[in-house]
Amino acid sequence: MFRNIRPYRIEWQDCDPAGIVFYPRYFAMFDTSTTLLFEKALGMRKRDFIKHYGFIGYPMVDTRAKFNIPGIFGDDVEIHTAVTELGRSSFSIEHKLMKDGAVAVEGWEKRVWVGRDPANPDRLKSQPLPPDVVEKLSG
Amino acid sequence: MFRNIRPYRIEWQDCDPAGIVFYPRYFAMFDTSTTLLFEKALGMRKRDFIKHYGFIGYPMVDTRAKFNIPGIFGDDVEIHTAVTELGRSSFSIEHKLMKDGAVAVEGWEKRVWVGRDPANPDRLKSQPLPPDVVEKLSG
Amino acid sequence: MFRNIRPYRIEWQDCDPAGIVFYPRYFAMFDTSTTLLFEKALGMRKRDFIKHYGFIGYPMVDTRAKFNIPGIFGDDVEIHTAVTELGRSSFSIEHKLMKDGAVAVEGWEKRVWVGRDPANPDRLKSQPLPPDVVEKLSG
Amino acid sequence: MFRNIRPYRIEWQDCDPAGIVFYPRYFAMFDTSTTLLFEKALGMRKRDFIKHYGFIGYPMVDTRAKFNIPGIFGDDVEIHTAVTELGRSSFSIEHKLMKDGAVAVEGWEKRVWVGRDPANPDRLKSQPLPPDVVEKLSG
Repeated sequence: MFRNIRPYRIEWQDCDPAGIVFYPRYFAMFDTSTTLLFEKALGMRKRDFIKHYGFIGYPMVDTRAKFNIPGIFGDDVEIHTAVTELGRSSFSIEHKLMKDGAVAVEGWEKRVWVGRDPANPDRLKSQPLPPDVVEKLSG
Repeated sequence: MFRNIRPYRIEWQDCDPAGIVFYPRYFAMFDTSTTLLFEKALGMRKRDFIKHYGFIGYPMVDTRAKFNIPGIFGDDVEIHTAVTELGRSSFSIEHKLMKDGAVAVEGWEKRVWVGRDPANPDRLKSQPLPPDVVEKLSG
Repeated sequence: MFRNIRPYRIEWQDCDPAGIVFYPRYFAMFDTSTTLLFEKALGMRKRDFIKHYGFIGYPMVDTRAKFNIPGIFGDDVEIHTAVTELGRSSFSIEHKLMKDGAVAVEGWEKRVWVGRDPANPDRLKSQPLPPDVVEKLSG
Repeated sequence: MFRNIRPYRIEWQDCDPAGIVFYPRYFAMFDTSTTLLFEKALGMRKRDFIKHYGFIGYPMVDTRAKFNIPGIFGDDVEIHTAVTELGRSSFSIEHKLMKDGAVAVEGWEKRVWVGRDPANPDRLKSQPLPPDVVEKLSG
């Protein structure tokens, strides 16, 4: 399955009065990591592949994270991201945030590929993953 | 176990270009809900109970959320929060974000009560939950 | 000109490792205050008045803020918001964040009413403020 | 005066339901740019220079930004940051966010160097800028 690694510098703005990362920020980091994985696999920026495939996005259905080591502003970490499952319209991703060689945070996510509901354009509706997206994420 | 319900208005700033809540924002809402539950149980604001009990905070150890119905800016929702488990130094909380009578988002979290590590004040170390905190959260 | 006051509780998530509000958060608070002022003046939620008037939003053109007194999590403040100028397609707003009776933060903003550019729907284009919006904000 | 340029990729999480950057996010980008300028000038990460100089931070006193061209997720921009004034305990910084060769956003900020108030450690108090910080930022 497709994988990507990206560096990340933990910033002052990611941290709370206890001096450590405010944990919802890890989910935002992972969201960007998923986007970067797709951009690398599909060879297009998100705003381009959204138009190319005519869909709205891949909202989260279920996500979990475990926090082993606190992150502090100034930490240079690496986020390792991999596709772990490809369904008909859903897919799963795994993230490991590495700090000094240790897994500081682990994340799992299940998302679904959605478009506008033809019956009600104000609503979202799942769509099958396009075959060439499946192929590229399987690589 | 102790419970709390609070109203929340989903804001423009909670939402992303797909027009729905950017899911890390739900974790931030749940974090505030946990704080409000503690404030109600202990009868003090967080900044006061941190001083009162001489600890640093209750960082997240493990959290998960399931997203059933998208939230849109302008939605008036209710967040139902309950203590589900009280350990020696850890505790578990459950959140249900209700929209139009349905469970739109469910969240689970396990946190740990921490102070400064006496051996290294730059590090955090778990501490036993104070007995009267346990008593008040059991109520 | 139209005015609105709203209460706000400063949250843990608004604050940084120095223990005070991370100042970009004040701009986010002011953005919500502007929305609440419009919602009160127009008698509709933002998502409804966007549809009703067929526009996209009122992006910021120019904004400034002065920070007199730091905000700390747990502070119960009031945000006073007033329209100060109504132009053809732009308008100005002033905010005062009051803490313990003192002006802790002052904000000024100039925004413009925009829709999709008919010549290029990927771009935004200013539009005249609808006459009844002008009338309601003048009240 | 000292200057720094950094690349920035505008992310999905920076954008709002209108599909453009939620403007408070620009202030957060500028805050990081100011930190990166200091880190480059002082040759230390923020968490290290805070300890080295024994201060708390440089909270914002007054900031303004003008928004000329909307930013969209996927934009690769450059943020140009320069010190423009060095006072006794305050200093001014200017930012230009460049997109496709044009100044998309301009920011100005005045900050103050603060420590704990010796008379009340819960309060912040301005301190003179250390001479070697002044020298390094003048370069």
